Amino acid sequence: MKNTLQLFRNGQVTMEEVLNQLKTYTYEDIGYARIDHHRAVRQGFPEVVFCQGKTVSQVAEIMHRLAAVSPNVLGTRANAEMFAAVKERVPEACYSEIARFITVERQKAVADPERYIVVISAGTGDMPVAEEAAITAEIMGNKVKRLYDVGVAGIHRLFDQHEIIYQANVCIVVAGMEGALASVVGGLVAKPVIAVPTSVGYGANLHGFSALLSMLNSCAAGVGVVNIDNGFGAGRLASIINSMR
Amino acid sequence: MKNTLQLFRNGQVTMEEVLNQLKTYTYEDIGYARIDHHRAVRQGFPEVVFCQGKTVSQVAEIMHRLAAVSPNVLGTRANAEMFAAVKERVPEACYSEIARFITVERQKAVADPERYIVVISAGTGDMPVAEEAAITAEIMGNKVKRLYDVGVAGIHRLFDQHEIIYQANVCIVVAGMEGALASVVGGLVAKPVIAVPTSVGYGANLHGFSALLSMLNSCAAGVGVVNIDNGFGAGRLASIINSMR
Amino acid sequence: MKNTLQLFRNGQVTMEEVLNQLKTYTYEDIGYARIDHHRAVRQGFPEVVFCQGKTVSQVAEIMHRLAAVSPNVLGTRANAEMFAAVKERVPEACYSEIARFITVERQKAVADPERYIVVISAGTGDMPVAEEAAITAEIMGNKVKRLYDVGVAGIHRLFDQHEIIYQANVCIVVAGMEGALASVVGGLVAKPVIAVPTSVGYGANLHGFSALLSMLNSCAAGVGVVNIDNGFGAGRLASIINSMR
Amino acid sequence: MKNTLQLFRNGQVTMEEVLNQLKTYTYEDIGYARIDHHRAVRQGFPEVVFCQGKTVSQVAEIMHRLAAVSPNVLGTRANAEMFAAVKERVPEACYSEIARFITVERQKAVADPERYIVVISAGTGDMPVAEEAAITAEIMGNKVKRLYDVGVAGIHRLFDQHEIIYQANVCIVVAGMEGALASVVGGLVAKPVIAVPTSVGYGANLHGFSALLSMLNSCAAGVGVVNIDNGFGAGRLASIINSMR
Amino acid sequence: MKNTLQLFRNGQVTMEEVLNQLKTYTYEDIGYARIDHHRAVRQGFPEVVFCQGKTVSQVAEIMHRLAAVSPNVLGTRANAEMFAAVKERVPEACYSEIARFITVERQKAVADPERYIVVISAGTGDMPVAEEAAITAEIMGNKVKRLYDVGVAGIHRLFDQHEIIYQANVCIVVAGMEGALASVVGGLVAKPVIAVPTSVGYGANLHGFSALLSMLNSCAAGVGVVNIDNGFGAGRLASIINSMR
Amino acid sequence: MKNTLQLFRNGQVTMEEVLNQLKTYTYEDIGYARIDHHRAVRQGFPEVVFCQGKTVSQVAEIMHRLAAVSPNVLGTRANAEMFAAVKERVPEACYSEIARFITVERQKAVADPERYIVVISAGTGDMPVAEEAAITAEIMGNKVKRLYDVGVAGIHRLFDQHEIIYQANVCIVVAGMEGALASVVGGLVAKPVIAVPTSVGYGANLHGFSALLSMLNSCAAGVGVVNIDNGFGAGRLASIINSMR
Amino acid sequence: MKNTLQLFRNGQVTMEEVLNQLKTYTYEDIGYARIDHHRAVRQGFPEVVFCQGKTVSQVAEIMHRLAAVSPNVLGTRANAEMFAAVKERVPEACYSEIARFITVERQKAVADPERYIVVISAGTGDMPVAEEAAITAEIMGNKVKRLYDVGVAGIHRLFDQHEIIYQANVCIVVAGMEGALASVVGGLVAKPVIAVPTSVGYGANLHGFSALLSMLNSCAAGVGVVNIDNGFGAGRLASIINSMR
Amino acid sequence: MKNTLQLFRNGQVTMEEVLNQLKTYTYEDIGYARIDHHRAVRQGFPEVVFCQGKTVSQVAEIMHRLAAVSPNVLGTRANAEMFAAVKERVPEACYSEIARFITVERQKAVADPERYIVVISAGTGDMPVAEEAAITAEIMGNKVKRLYDVGVAGIHRLFDQHEIIYQANVCIVVAGMEGALASVVGGLVAKPVIAVPTSVGYGANLHGFSALLSMLNSCAAGVGVVNIDNGFGAGRLASIINSMR
Repeated sequence: MKNTLQLFRNGQVTMEEVLNQLKTYTYEDIGYARIDHHRAVRQGFPEVVFCQGKTVSQVAEIMHRLAAVSPNVLGTRANAEMFAAVKERVPEACYSEIARFITVERQKAVADPERYIVVISAGTGDMPVAEEAAITAEIMGNKVKRLYDVGVAGIHRLFDQHEIIYQANVCIVVAGMEGALASVVGGLVAKPVIAVPTSVGYGANLHGFSALLSMLNSCAAGVGVVNIDNGFGAGRLASIINSMR
Repeated sequence: MKNTLQLFRNGQVTMEEVLNQLKTYTYEDIGYARIDHHRAVRQGFPEVVFCQGKTVSQVAEIMHRLAAVSPNVLGTRANAEMFAAVKERVPEACYSEIARFITVERQKAVADPERYIVVISAGTGDMPVAEEAAITAEIMGNKVKRLYDVGVAGIHRLFDQHEIIYQANVCIVVAGMEGALASVVGGLVAKPVIAVPTSVGYGANLHGFSALLSMLNSCAAGVGVVNIDNGFGAGRLASIINSMR
Repeated sequence: MKNTLQLFRNGQVTMEEVLNQLKTYTYEDIGYARIDHHRAVRQGFPEVVFCQGKTVSQVAEIMHRLAAVSPNVLGTRANAEMFAAVKERVPEACYSEIARFITVERQKAVADPERYIVVISAGTGDMPVAEEAAITAEIMGNKVKRLYDVGVAGIHRLFDQHEIIYQANVCIVVAGMEGALASVVGGLVAKPVIAVPTSVGYGANLHGFSALLSMLNSCAAGVGVVNIDNGFGAGRLASIINSMR
Repeated sequence: MKNTLQLFRNGQVTMEEVLNQLKTYTYEDIGYARIDHHRAVRQGFPEVVFCQGKTVSQVAEIMHRLAAVSPNVLGTRANAEMFAAVKERVPEACYSEIARFITVERQKAVADPERYIVVISAGTGDMPVAEEAAITAEIMGNKVKRLYDVGVAGIHRLFDQHEIIYQANVCIVVAGMEGALASVVGGLVAKPVIAVPTSVGYGANLHGFSALLSMLNSCAAGVGVVNIDNGFGAGRLASIINSMR
Repeated sequence: MKNTLQLFRNGQVTMEEVLNQLKTYTYEDIGYARIDHHRAVRQGFPEVVFCQGKTVSQVAEIMHRLAAVSPNVLGTRANAEMFAAVKERVPEACYSEIARFITVERQKAVADPERYIVVISAGTGDMPVAEEAAITAEIMGNKVKRLYDVGVAGIHRLFDQHEIIYQANVCIVVAGMEGALASVVGGLVAKPVIAVPTSVGYGANLHGFSALLSMLNSCAAGVGVVNIDNGFGAGRLASIINSMR
Repeated sequence: MKNTLQLFRNGQVTMEEVLNQLKTYTYEDIGYARIDHHRAVRQGFPEVVFCQGKTVSQVAEIMHRLAAVSPNVLGTRANAEMFAAVKERVPEACYSEIARFITVERQKAVADPERYIVVISAGTGDMPVAEEAAITAEIMGNKVKRLYDVGVAGIHRLFDQHEIIYQANVCIVVAGMEGALASVVGGLVAKPVIAVPTSVGYGANLHGFSALLSMLNSCAAGVGVVNIDNGFGAGRLASIINSMR
Repeated sequence: MKNTLQLFRNGQVTMEEVLNQLKTYTYEDIGYARIDHHRAVRQGFPEVVFCQGKTVSQVAEIMHRLAAVSPNVLGTRANAEMFAAVKERVPEACYSEIARFITVERQKAVADPERYIVVISAGTGDMPVAEEAAITAEIMGNKVKRLYDVGVAGIHRLFDQHEIIYQANVCIVVAGMEGALASVVGGLVAKPVIAVPTSVGYGANLHGFSALLSMLNSCAAGVGVVNIDNGFGAGRLASIINSMR
Repeated sequence: MKNTLQLFRNGQVTMEEVLNQLKTYTYEDIGYARIDHHRAVRQGFPEVVFCQGKTVSQVAEIMHRLAAVSPNVLGTRANAEMFAAVKERVPEACYSEIARFITVERQKAVADPERYIVVISAGTGDMPVAEEAAITAEIMGNKVKRLYDVGVAGIHRLFDQHEIIYQANVCIVVAGMEGALASVVGGLVAKPVIAVPTSVGYGANLHGFSALLSMLNSCAAGVGVVNIDNGFGAGRLASIINSMR
């Protein structure tokens, strides 16, 4: 890095080249993890910690390190015990039980109220995943509107709210069971639709595979699909799209 | 709606058109749920609450709201804790442990004893799903006969009861393992057969997929299949068919 | 059989018992097949020949034998070569290329125009399966209305025809890809809905499994599902239901 | 519609309401298809014809009808015979053999050269799907750059082109086999990544399922996935995103 | 081997030990195949050639070598071209088109007419697999009775023949689609039942997997299952069982 | 039944016909179960109770009823609580914890020591299933030899015991993981081999599917397969075969 | 064995032949297990005990017997209770909680520091499996370097360590989710790469199947794959390869 | 690159660093492909062309370019037409019909006869895949011994050749159906075993998945698995291992 900067001072490399190099080099090695501090430079938001499968102390340590250099930090699929451990070291940390999120949000982003993301869910049972998507988008600086329990078995509930849908900048559709809602919304709008299958249902829903396959086979073009129950991924992608000018 | 009714008063739209519009417009929004009060108009029975995946307080609130406008209400896949919470707010509520149903039945429908639905199950282990189907049909106003544990490994037990089967108006066949009973019954009768695969079994039954595939591939035509363990769906469909004149 | 009839003549068994026995006993053995001539007694329509997987001469022989005792006969999944062979022996035989049906229809059933079955399909590619269902229902004595290419990607095409749907006695919904149409229709009507998944699509549609799973997991109750591409089965079940009084 | 327009003339409904209604009502019924002429109003591009599974004459008829009202028309998964039939009725039609597209492009859209979409493919065998995506985006008015055969087995080929990737507005990643490329690109950029799994490979690739699962499980957030080999869907989604301001 | 025989002559090893060793040692190496000439000693019938996947000349060579030392030889899944090549070198060879078998049967085994194997099939389409089983059993020295097209959709056809089933020594049940026949037969008899799923059917039959799962999950104990379409394996196992005294 | 017996007394039907009828008619109906008391007549052993999925009181009641008319009774997949309840009502009942069996064995069958069944297992973890098979065969009157932990990773342990294998009348092979043992044993002997896949293993063993597929695809002919972990079914089938003369 | 040794003393068989025979003959039979003491001769390390699925006392007994004849012993997938029981009988036993290993290591192997194995893992959650691999390799006498949390979402973390990777003798790559890391490493090095898919992830990761399929379809040649979460197998294979000269 | 070399001339970077950089930078861009000329530097053998899915002219062009800079070139899964086109431009090219390989071998590697790879196959039908592995290893400079048709159904054929197996440096095991051979060989030797599942078989072999799962679940440790039918991958991995010193 020093070399590059020296060359930069001599005018031999451009500012842009330096920044590009910065995008690729720095992280912190703590043995069981290499914390990617420069993801914020590279992707506009710091590394997000996927807590599931890590020990409580690993989660606490990693979030502590991230919080030392970034104002905002996010931990997904966290349980209450993990939150307690993080809270001890990062007092500003908050916990959303429904979304299973640990959040540190010291620098509230100012969201553009005209460019909102709508999160549409099929049933009440899909709410945890829908909230995961909504909170992710909010912490990354977007205005979010929620439209819950508008599944196709009572489709007038959806059409009744068409104005909210038509005026949104990005749509996130969260649905389990047969996941039909994604196709219906996809056929209505000319904006990007991000579909999140959920594991809500039983039997032949195959833990969410039924909704996943439905969404991938949507007869409406313009639908991008993320993993089953991956509300975070949908919120992240919606945020990236919504920030485009 | 007002507009339509005004036009109706002026004789510009017919009664039928008004009712059709009514079928599509009204529901109650309580944030995490949009209660579809007009499903009773549209489909002849109020919205049924799928309790699994909802919180206890969500279940209690939704059933309370439904019970405020409908005499009969049904909650499926409910546990005892949910029932207790509902009972507090809707004292007439009852609970069937075997079928995992919360029922409010203030207006007992008068069933036609000549037009009965028979629920046939292969084994004792299929009984919870069979009861889910039977109670659903009963609360929706049908006479139900039960014929349990007549699986094909001792097929004389089935043939011995052929009169009950031949005279039924609709047959529901509930079976796990290899699900062969649906094909045998389907080959005997000239009435609609609704097949419910159950997750009873182990190993290569794949949590009910084996029975599901069997029933879908039935060599007997005239068999409609519902999701694994979906006794409710079968009871609902049988009731719709049985109410046809 | 003789015994029973003797007892009947002596007044020892009732007419009903005789007919029930008749339902179970007679067929014709031609070596590679046992033709079930009394299915017409038992189920109201003669045995239907599933032609696929049989040799041309087997198909011709079996249909010839059936045509000798029944006015109307149906062969499904037949190719042109099979039809030619049948035609030689049963000159009244007709062929529907799109539905792959060989039909003999010497006694046109009089359909009740008030009690019609509507066959709704999602896309033009689903038409062969939809026609299989429609023609099956027609040959079994039902009036059928067709509503094709009304998939959810342009859902106004469906709602535009809601009168035809609301007034139907039974709905058959034929859809491939994500099969969302079945849930949408199932949520609108209070009549039985029979869902037929088709293998239309590619990739993650898994040769129709995607639509099948969707339909089994439909959030709308009252939907019975048949095998992938099984238009015949849907038509048969719809006909049984439609004939109920 | 007339009613609405009358009300509009009277000032009783707003222009916006009229346009919204227009979005939902008009199509042309030709029996086996209902051509959705107003998709252009609703979604900014006319209905795209999925030719596979339709007969040659159906394709020709539908594309002819669309071409009568829209300057630009697109048919996907078309074969040479279909093209010949279309060409006879719509002389301006062109055919891309590699992408299997029939295109009519009478009104070339002016693409913004600063906001380009990059289509990145892993191997030469993925090229037909990559071209499907690229041409779709081009016909819908986008500048497209192609970066082919940069799979992770020789990852320096990818990094060597990082400037093209960093400066793109939207990335489409097309890969078969293990589909690892989507994760690598997803980790590099802060722009939306649309991943297209292809069926390239053999054995345990399960006709593209292996790449599909990889992409859905991408450890890089911000990746939206479409169906296996669905280059068209990816191009459509990328175009929608790229047109956002 | 010489060593062992020398020791045997000296009385140091018993006759039984010599025979056991013989069971394990001799074969003929022709490069692409090692022909197991002593399988006849070890298992009572010479090596059976699985022709599918071998070249025509490999099949001809291997069968020729086997025919040089064994009076009876069997090749399964053979096509007509393979047969022609074998016939040239082993003039006594015969071909069964329906079972796709090449047989050399110079020493007709004398079957015990009292101990017969019954091959029961569900439909006419299952006949090729049923014949594969029947002919295998016959060439290995068993009397076989055939009971075809007695599937459960017309179950009286099966019960009508119960005497043939009750008096059989071993039952082979061949069925596709939902494979229910195996459970019904398994529940009737106290003799071994060998179930052969076939790939007859379509859609959710998953090329025979549906019948396979059914048979594995049979509620009737005493059913052993072989691979899909594996008539040969069933015939072989039935023959081994039938030869027990 | 009375009729038949009267005719029998008159010499109009034979003894054999009476017994055949007896095989098909009698059972006891206790509401949630129809106990098949004549299975002993029909299949040589009374109905076996599959306890899993039944309530404790159902198990106790059913086994009590069976024990009232049969000297020997068997309940499979039973837990300790079920056993305690049965024990209260049938004091002679015993429990095998490893095989999860409740057994009542008041009439010990005399086994022929020359005609034994060998139960061969691949690993120590397969022992519960192996014991299920062994005890089933013993209670049904067979001599059983056990050969455990002789999997193919140390194949000399198997060959070392070849005498026990060669001299057995029937072989049961119990194996999890890759299930290779069934093929190796199947290639050695000329006696029936019954293969039982177990769910022992992890990851890509897919809860026993890996071993199941292996056994179904065994390159050694003469292998019949039962469901995953179905030791009982294997023991039952082996017993039927072993009792043949 | 005696015979062979006698012949050896007489010079009739060579030393090599004796050793080869030794490789195949000796084990200890303790009823539920046959302990393969000569695996150390045959494969260079004593039998490794797969503890999962064995009872605590079986594990203790087997490890005790192995420890009686071998200096080093390994038990995998062991829990703390098993360890306690082993410790009582083999006081030198140690336990790795993260790898779930019981180890007895009385004769520390001297590892060659120049020929090291590198264990590379994608995320912190993959650490238990990575440690299973690393400790296995260490106890079998190899120097191991660990490179954890270098997944492709931040690929600079991997490239930053390229020297450690290039200079390794064998690479083990441990990754869940989409398992892309194996392909990236496989494309960089000319040394054997052993890929271990893990069950880390959720939804469409199908408990590790997604990573497994990715690794099997790697576009980089030279990658051998082991079972999901099978760190032990990878460590064992790496050790065998690393010991080659 | 120039920069680095300049620095190298000045003594500022070491030779090793230069070579490492060379490993990562050079390739040739021909539009639809980026030919990785430096794979020979990085991995010891030039890029291998996977011909399947490429057009004939693409194959010819790519192989021609590779042959221009490398003495030895390999194209896998090539058909005769591709070969003809390559031959025209690279006259030394040869074709192996059985392995579907196009090879250019202008610099025959000198193989060490003491360090051979043994390729073991289960049946004659596995030969194409076995040859793919064997020829790959040979062209990469290894001595190869072939041991074909030694599947476990006649396991003495395998044991008879144990010397060849014990003395090999690396074992490749090629098997379809149940793939048991890999476990048997894996239990015998202390050398690396590479298992190649093949798609040989039918029905429940699931196009090779059955053998694949078997091999992944092998009870013998030390087995690395490659994709179904991937003989090339196995040969490549074996060659890498065999070249280690």
